[in-house]
Amino acid sequence: MDNFQFSNPTKIYFGTNSQHTLIENIDKSFKNIFLVSGKSSARKSGLLESIQNELISFGHTVFVFEGVSANPLLSHTNEGIKLCREFKIDAIVAIGGGSVLDEAKAIAAGVCYEGDVWDFFTKKALIKKALPLYTILTLAATGSEMNGNSVVTNDDTLQKYNTNSALIYPLASALNPMLTLGVPNDYLVYSAVDAISHVIEGYFTKQKPNSFVDRLCESVILTIIESTEMILKDPVNYEARGQFMWASCLALNGLMQTGISGFSFPNHIIELPLSAKFNVAHGAGLSVVIPAWMKWYENQNKAQFERFAKSIFDLNTSNEGIDALEAWFKKIGAPVRLGELGICEKDIEELSTMGTDLARLRGGLEKVYTPCVIENILKMAL
Amino acid sequence: MDNFQFSNPTKIYFGTNSQHTLIENIDKSFKNIFLVSGKSSARKSGLLESIQNELISFGHTVFVFEGVSANPLLSHTNEGIKLCREFKIDAIVAIGGGSVLDEAKAIAAGVCYEGDVWDFFTKKALIKKALPLYTILTLAATGSEMNGNSVVTNDDTLQKYNTNSALIYPLASALNPMLTLGVPNDYLVYSAVDAISHVIEGYFTKQKPNSFVDRLCESVILTIIESTEMILKDPVNYEARGQFMWASCLALNGLMQTGISGFSFPNHIIELPLSAKFNVAHGAGLSVVIPAWMKWYENQNKAQFERFAKSIFDLNTSNEGIDALEAWFKKIGAPVRLGELGICEKDIEELSTMGTDLARLRGGLEKVYTPCVIENILKMAL
Repeated sequence: MDNFQFSNPTKIYFGTNSQHTLIENIDKSFKNIFLVSGKSSARKSGLLESIQNELISFGHTVFVFEGVSANPLLSHTNEGIKLCREFKIDAIVAIGGGSVLDEAKAIAAGVCYEGDVWDFFTKKALIKKALPLYTILTLAATGSEMNGNSVVTNDDTLQKYNTNSALIYPLASALNPMLTLGVPNDYLVYSAVDAISHVIEGYFTKQKPNSFVDRLCESVILTIIESTEMILKDPVNYEARGQFMWASCLALNGLMQTGISGFSFPNHIIELPLSAKFNVAHGAGLSVVIPAWMKWYENQNKAQFERFAKSIFDLNTSNEGIDALEAWFKKIGAPVRLGELGICEKDIEELSTMGTDLARLRGGLEKVYTPCVIENILKMAL
Repeated sequence: MDNFQFSNPTKIYFGTNSQHTLIENIDKSFKNIFLVSGKSSARKSGLLESIQNELISFGHTVFVFEGVSANPLLSHTNEGIKLCREFKIDAIVAIGGGSVLDEAKAIAAGVCYEGDVWDFFTKKALIKKALPLYTILTLAATGSEMNGNSVVTNDDTLQKYNTNSALIYPLASALNPMLTLGVPNDYLVYSAVDAISHVIEGYFTKQKPNSFVDRLCESVILTIIESTEMILKDPVNYEARGQFMWASCLALNGLMQTGISGFSFPNHIIELPLSAKFNVAHGAGLSVVIPAWMKWYENQNKAQFERFAKSIFDLNTSNEGIDALEAWFKKIGAPVRLGELGICEKDIEELSTMGTDLARLRGGLEKVYTPCVIENILKMAL
């Protein structure tokens, strides 16, 4: 068990009507609120307008900023930063899924920084200050509602990079499973893969065993599998939506990474170029990458793959466990081959180079994840 | 899944040397530090003196306050409050196990309150303010290092009551498994029972199913069982001490109680009079009460007892699960009969009345846990 520090200051309001409780509890001294939202769903469902009206009823002045895309773009982030400065924004409220929350975090930090916000993503600068942020979640997947991560794509260079800071944790997040009822099945499935990916990265790549954290991770995976199947059968199952929402939140709030060291995020490193270049959903990219990466990595941590097979699928060999996960992805309708994403063999070379660039940026992993290694992994997904 | 709010602001420094990191990070503006400790072990091991010197080296003025007993007393708490006022204390550092931490919390709140600190325990007053608190844990069991609970015994009335407030969460806690190497086997065993008790109260008494939280609770129980056995075989096993320490912390930091409602703490209600009146260790009292309570409660939540039997002991019936837990308590050397605590049949009547008083105070459970019901439960432990 390795040394660690853990701290997570985000307050969670969970359950029916929790968005109202969140709004009631927003500091009244935050006069000007920047309300960030996606391209259309919160507008269409009426949620955006109702939140806007509720904020106004509590005396806030609200500036609505819509149009965050599924892979949030640097250009749109910069637009948000400019508007926040212009309107002297005091706090941000984000309504949406991980993408909206991630862009809102980048805006929150960017407003308080004189340089280019992209510096935080290329590690040229550290976040020193950020606007206060509240979030109302409408798609559970990324855990962004309870962590300090943000992933943004530079639309000039197609680099999809992340930043992380204790200063961009939301002050509070509302997790109301009812607000996820509108999530279509394909996005639910991608979200399931994403949440699972968040715990298996550390689960397989950590350097020392940690059976307690393994059990916590397995609790997340089993719950995501169980609740996804329940939601696919019965999309209005509140209980299953709730289980999915809380499990995907804890998957990346830091707990599942306590006491483990030397772990990395290879599946994210390999996937991010796919979603940046082909604009596929992050979870769709992951469900193609993960089984391929597992087959490549299996022999480096055989015992842990055997544990995974046993505890998740009640199977005996590491190989069977990987196959069972791939089969489950297929069963729920997630893609497992590059072709399903519209990616061909000829694209692999460029994607591999981009992956290695990202590996360099994320803790010097470029010597492990060389273009040649990533090519081999991606070829297994053809 | 029930609505809930979750927030836990305590920062955890976990691992070797974590007490140094904690001290380094204490706000330098806290000039006068009240260093609270137990009766002798931190003094004997040299830890108290080393922490005192380290605090001084960072420019703090330190007032040492020793002598907290295993069931912390109101009289000693009041003494601490008086001294804190006299020395114009800015912050408290507690070194010890749950008892020391609990008394330190009561002192922290009591200093900022004009009335009698006991008012917080009898629910006559709410904590409105408290001194900042830091803790260095030397015995893992109660989770006090990462929650807002405090249990104190009124030495005049022998009432052992608890209070709870968001304002008495430690700012930061150092969890160094090395500092628990001196915990003798009997206290380790009581601590194991205590940690298990913290998750099974909600696990069995909640009103609606919650499979995710069930899995998290089972992760804690399995880890406590596994690590206790490892420590008993090899007391200097750092890894096992670490697993035990982190699992017992998460057992009562609020996570295992998320999304569940209507749950209660019957085993604590029944046990607290035992440890208050006979001054037995809380965990020792619990290991006697728990199997008896389970036998009494079993039919009210049969499916959950079957789940427990299967997931913890790989057994099929609820009855077998209860027997297996009682057998495990015996195996590790925890008492399972009242006689082992020096309690006779003639004491049961008074203990039952005290239990019902506590049930009244803890959410109006006196109609369920009448003296007659508690008598029946305790008689099963004869």
